[in-house]
Amino acid sequence: MTTDIAAWRELERTAVFSRFGRSVDRVGFELPDGAREEFYLKRERPAAAVLALTADRQVVLARQYRPGPARVLYELPGGIVEPGERAAEAAARELLEETGYQGEIHLAGPYWQDAYSDALRLAFCATDCVKVAEPAPERTEFIEVVTLPLPEFRATVLRSGAMTDTAAAYLALDHLHLL
Amino acid sequence: MTTDIAAWRELERTAVFSRFGRSVDRVGFELPDGAREEFYLKRERPAAAVLALTADRQVVLARQYRPGPARVLYELPGGIVEPGERAAEAAARELLEETGYQGEIHLAGPYWQDAYSDALRLAFCATDCVKVAEPAPERTEFIEVVTLPLPEFRATVLRSGAMTDTAAAYLALDHLHLL
Repeated sequence: MTTDIAAWRELERTAVFSRFGRSVDRVGFELPDGAREEFYLKRERPAAAVLALTADRQVVLARQYRPGPARVLYELPGGIVEPGERAAEAAARELLEETGYQGEIHLAGPYWQDAYSDALRLAFCATDCVKVAEPAPERTEFIEVVTLPLPEFRATVLRSGAMTDTAAAYLALDHLHLL
Repeated sequence: MTTDIAAWRELERTAVFSRFGRSVDRVGFELPDGAREEFYLKRERPAAAVLALTADRQVVLARQYRPGPARVLYELPGGIVEPGERAAEAAARELLEETGYQGEIHLAGPYWQDAYSDALRLAFCATDCVKVAEPAPERTEFIEVVTLPLPEFRATVLRSGAMTDTAAAYLALDHLHLL
């Protein structure tokens, strides 16, 4: 007999923690073999991140302190998709707010962030970016806008994993045939 | 005056949820401008994922239901690094348990998973993989072992974001100069 690996059935779900649009649910499942098991699953709003390139292939980055890793990282501009907002609008808005740059936005692809979270991440690329304004970060954001030539970005930031948007950056470069 | 973007200072930390080696802490920071702000930060154990290739460039995958995304995904073998275990040992152990394959393990690189989590992920590649045993998954794992030719894996799984280890897979392929 072959087990149907997809035959998971959610039996019950209880929020055990909830704050700022993120929550942790305790979820009871019936597994494919009929056993029951509880999992703790995160619920998080979708987020967009954007690999932004100028016409001469400089990558526009938002260098900032990240409280989870507890260090300053070269991050892709990005953030939570607000209710009622399209993901591409969120990517353009975050790029402008965090860096002052604007460009032509393309979806590179969605991806799942975590086996125990429902968070969908949207990777975008922005091409022909130009600076059109001063950055207007949020009250708790302290950002240094940095541009790095693409080969340097790939060698010193992306391949070293020194960012939290590694998947988005690779997906965007793959979409642009720049890998 | 230039703000020092790195001048975040942790003032206090309280666990608000804790289960299965994962927790959520409420953390108070003093920000670079002297303001105070609370963040909810996840604490998670490091995890390893492994892009496993046979000698003829088939990718060995662990197709399984993922309760966060709530669907079956083609996943890289991998899992939590156990206390006292080296990350490379965890990668080899998970590869063997989940798929029955063994190979030569190389670290491709660490990466940060999330701006609000301290989780460090370790991407590995395993080359010249061969099947040496039957898979021995854990009680709550229901896995179909699938091998896909590398170009098909890249086109239909990786670029479509249909996995939760996108960053690890790209880092491993980049490390092997296979992008």
